[in-house]
Amino acid sequence: MTPADEAQLALLYEVAGTPKPGNVDRARDHEDLHFEQFLAGAVGARSGLAAAESGERVGASFEEAVSGMAAAARTNTQFGALLLLVPLVRTASEGPLTPERARRTVDETTVEDAADFYRAFEHVDVALDDPPADADALDARRGRDAIPALRKRGLTLAEVLALGADSDDVAAELVGEFERTFRAAADIEERSGPYSERAAATFFRLLAAEADTLVATTHGPEVAAAVRRRAADLLDAEAPAKEAFADELVSRDINPGTTADITAAGLFVALHRGEGDD
Amino acid sequence: MTPADEAQLALLYEVAGTPKPGNVDRARDHEDLHFEQFLAGAVGARSGLAAAESGERVGASFEEAVSGMAAAARTNTQFGALLLLVPLVRTASEGPLTPERARRTVDETTVEDAADFYRAFEHVDVALDDPPADADALDARRGRDAIPALRKRGLTLAEVLALGADSDDVAAELVGEFERTFRAAADIEERSGPYSERAAATFFRLLAAEADTLVATTHGPEVAAAVRRRAADLLDAEAPAKEAFADELVSRDINPGTTADITAAGLFVALHRGEGDD
Repeated sequence: MTPADEAQLALLYEVAGTPKPGNVDRARDHEDLHFEQFLAGAVGARSGLAAAESGERVGASFEEAVSGMAAAARTNTQFGALLLLVPLVRTASEGPLTPERARRTVDETTVEDAADFYRAFEHVDVALDDPPADADALDARRGRDAIPALRKRGLTLAEVLALGADSDDVAAELVGEFERTFRAAADIEERSGPYSERAAATFFRLLAAEADTLVATTHGPEVAAAVRRRAADLLDAEAPAKEAFADELVSRDINPGTTADITAAGLFVALHRGEGDD
Repeated sequence: MTPADEAQLALLYEVAGTPKPGNVDRARDHEDLHFEQFLAGAVGARSGLAAAESGERVGASFEEAVSGMAAAARTNTQFGALLLLVPLVRTASEGPLTPERARRTVDETTVEDAADFYRAFEHVDVALDDPPADADALDARRGRDAIPALRKRGLTLAEVLALGADSDDVAAELVGEFERTFRAAADIEERSGPYSERAAATFFRLLAAEADTLVATTHGPEVAAAVRRRAADLLDAEAPAKEAFADELVSRDINPGTTADITAAGLFVALHRGEGDD
């Protein structure tokens, strides 16, 4: 398998793992989001992942992946996961997949990559926190309308992501050497059994360790903190208690999507290292 | 989506549909075959599907798809489905996807395609019936050792498949204008809701209509006939009765895999036509 294949498979294993409380998984759909839309998203994203593998700019590859995902899934299924996967695929296609080299891939992005990133928002609805007060013109929710302000300030993709790193743990991964991603990969590698089942266990551990930033954005920081505490309390619980927690979050429409994104990225790292690249 | 994408998605939707009695599906694993191996098989098969799309020989594309599938899934997950999908992808990539044109794609295969087909058996274990008495030297279970006999007789892939069409309904599809495949596609198109759920209903109807030839090969024609009758009796039953039937077949290790293969091919046709090619 090539890095693009591994990334696609990581997306598929991620959604197949169950229970992943609050997320669509092998056993659960959301009212307006079906398991199979994630399968379609993984298929649609592939050309963008393949572009990253063959050396296309990170931003352009990401926009292509998001565009393909949104067309196939007919909604936003894996935006954050792709934002993590694209630079990781690019890194893996050019040499060893290490935190330092992944960070360098992000650091080497340009203003053009940032413009691509803004264009990607045109394809989907993404829940985002308000930007810092001095960065309103750069609010990603503006899509391509933010590009002139971006060019004026000469911000690279890495710099734009740094603006969001406080409120979005996907952005924090990208500007922080993918710390939780590589920890997730190590956690997956320490477990045994099918990758999708390992990933569900790793998801639970990630959720117990840090409040999910998508939950914080959509339901407020108190809810995110409460979800984290519940996950920590249930970490060593039997399966039925975990399943009940999963059912509860789905019924309350609480979706720890950032944790799922990091799980998918961790799966990619584990799959890639499992294929022989260390 | 390109035809190769649609074929990959058909493989994913097929395994996601549940209940599909006797098959791995979203809700069921077999003891030695996990749901995620089908996800991996669909990822691994992609390069062969892409080869078919870009005009590579049907046989060579099929061998590449099977090789990639087997490497990723570490077993045989979708051999029969790929044998149907490769000529369908090739047909769709060159013009309208009609039974006549699909049949022509098969008819145009050569002795080289047949040799590729035999090589594909080297990658996996496939359950096959004994060949006709005068075709023992061409037994596909011989893998590449059968190629000299094949060349001596000058048989094309279409001719080799015709030898197996009595005992294998995948081969029968290929040499018979994909009749059940296109019927399955029409059945899927008539239903509503997620494709994977439609496909599970279509699978049930296919299983009720004709005895599964993989079950006949692995458990004998009486068992295959009994499974077909049970499916027919349960066709309009409530979900719990269908689920119980699915559990029973899995526990008896009865796998109507040919019916699943035709379901996947029907999904491909439906997805492709849904994208605007009629």
